[in-house]
Amino acid sequence: MRCVRCRARPEVYLRAHNAAFCRACYIPWFQRQVERTLTSGRMCTRDDQVLVAVSGGKDSLALWDALVTLGYRTSGLHVAQGIGGYSATSREKVERFARDRGLPLLVHDLADEGLAIPEVASTTRRAPCSACGTLKRYAFDRVAHVHGFAILATGHNLDDEAARLLGNLLRWQTTHLARQRPVLDPRHPTQVRKIRPLVLVSEYETAAYAFLRGIDYVVEECPYAEGATQLLYKEALDRIEAGSPGTKLAFVREFFRSAQPLFAASEPADGAPPRSCTRCGMPAFDELCAHCRLLRVLAPAGGPSAA
Amino acid sequence: MRCVRCRARPEVYLRAHNAAFCRACYIPWFQRQVERTLTSGRMCTRDDQVLVAVSGGKDSLALWDALVTLGYRTSGLHVAQGIGGYSATSREKVERFARDRGLPLLVHDLADEGLAIPEVASTTRRAPCSACGTLKRYAFDRVAHVHGFAILATGHNLDDEAARLLGNLLRWQTTHLARQRPVLDPRHPTQVRKIRPLVLVSEYETAAYAFLRGIDYVVEECPYAEGATQLLYKEALDRIEAGSPGTKLAFVREFFRSAQPLFAASEPADGAPPRSCTRCGMPAFDELCAHCRLLRVLAPAGGPSAA
Repeated sequence: MRCVRCRARPEVYLRAHNAAFCRACYIPWFQRQVERTLTSGRMCTRDDQVLVAVSGGKDSLALWDALVTLGYRTSGLHVAQGIGGYSATSREKVERFARDRGLPLLVHDLADEGLAIPEVASTTRRAPCSACGTLKRYAFDRVAHVHGFAILATGHNLDDEAARLLGNLLRWQTTHLARQRPVLDPRHPTQVRKIRPLVLVSEYETAAYAFLRGIDYVVEECPYAEGATQLLYKEALDRIEAGSPGTKLAFVREFFRSAQPLFAASEPADGAPPRSCTRCGMPAFDELCAHCRLLRVLAPAGGPSAA
Repeated sequence: MRCVRCRARPEVYLRAHNAAFCRACYIPWFQRQVERTLTSGRMCTRDDQVLVAVSGGKDSLALWDALVTLGYRTSGLHVAQGIGGYSATSREKVERFARDRGLPLLVHDLADEGLAIPEVASTTRRAPCSACGTLKRYAFDRVAHVHGFAILATGHNLDDEAARLLGNLLRWQTTHLARQRPVLDPRHPTQVRKIRPLVLVSEYETAAYAFLRGIDYVVEECPYAEGATQLLYKEALDRIEAGSPGTKLAFVREFFRSAQPLFAASEPADGAPPRSCTRCGMPAFDELCAHCRLLRVLAPAGGPSAA
């Protein structure tokens, strides 16, 4: 097989698309996929200021790179998790990426607030990934709100989205299915619109893009890794994809097109909208938001501040 | 672990139910599962005459055995496919099962009508499983109609149902999802109500029941086997089940409970109802039913009869 664009010797083979690309043709192909997702999902325009959540991994840095190349106005947001050498390396990669390209970067270090993940997890006896999720989601909204960003982009790829979808389907989490969209509009004045522009490009496609663009990303996995269940779903989908290439893409794309609206319509107004946390004013489904509930467990009287 | 009912040494371990059973307790447990599916799905009562489709495999014979033991009034229907030694053995097993228990059995031999699967498949250039499906479905409705049965039971188990559901979801076949129910009521005067009472018991549970009940079933697979894709879905689900026991049961049960109605409601009246085949009067979505279209390909002028 030759490059489907220019007939040169190919470097990237994509079975799901029954296509191969040379380096020079792959890079714009990948960017066009991202652009198409941005446009068809009405995620943002070139007039918007987009905050890009960058962990230092291949997905988020590939996303930032593609958005910049496509001419979007972006700033990076790195939430440092205080997980020893892993977090230090991640931060370095992000800072170097931004510095080399002259891009604005905000760093929010959880350890500065006494909220390094290992300590929070052990003190609250919560699973590290669960505590990290709560603190990161809060930081995304909070930093975006404080700095006046209306849009936050994350680097979730097709593999992440397909595994999440399969998990929601295996347990028929209809409330989650009603909210599983590549664009989530705010439901509270302090919330930011969340967009996932990589949702139709696979992990392999993103890794190939990062490699061919010479992006230096953190290769090691978070030592707490991903939940075993999520990995189980990814493995199962990988086997099906190997036997039937293109399955993941059709699964996720058709879900957004034909099934997700059914679930959304069946949940009255996406469930009750959040109210305001009585402690910090951010979105909450109870008197306190999930973040402030976590802080209360950490320091029942006083302790780390709300933001 | 001991038998959860009587604390005896167990013979069957069910991780999905976090339970173990001795032989004496397992058999009634299995039958109760079937009874519960029959009752909660309002599938049939003990006043109904139920036609049980029996291939000679473990699932359909276990189903027939359980229905008889539970006191339902049943007759067997064996559709012989004309697939050499495999079909001969299958028919023998079914006939001996019925004879040993004094149960009424109808045998419909496709070869008698010149419709043996290997010949039909090669003449029509259709995949054998596809031709077999068309001919079997037709024979089920036709024989039930001719003999005055209102209900037909098939032995599809939880593993079959979960794989079918996953396949429908991966491609978001919303029309199929709207019709994937353990009870399908007729939509045409010549159609029979179809019920699947084993839909919440796994293949393993059914095999254990057949073994412990001393049922002699055909062990070899149909030489045409199942489509590779269906096997791919079963393997993927098996891996998830191994890591997270009970997933398949929750997946299928919750689908019927909470999601299937959404799909059914979104398809106006389950799609258009069938009309009558102009050749044989059975349900058709075109001028001819799928069966008569197949016959027309086989013998453009004259040839095998409609029933």
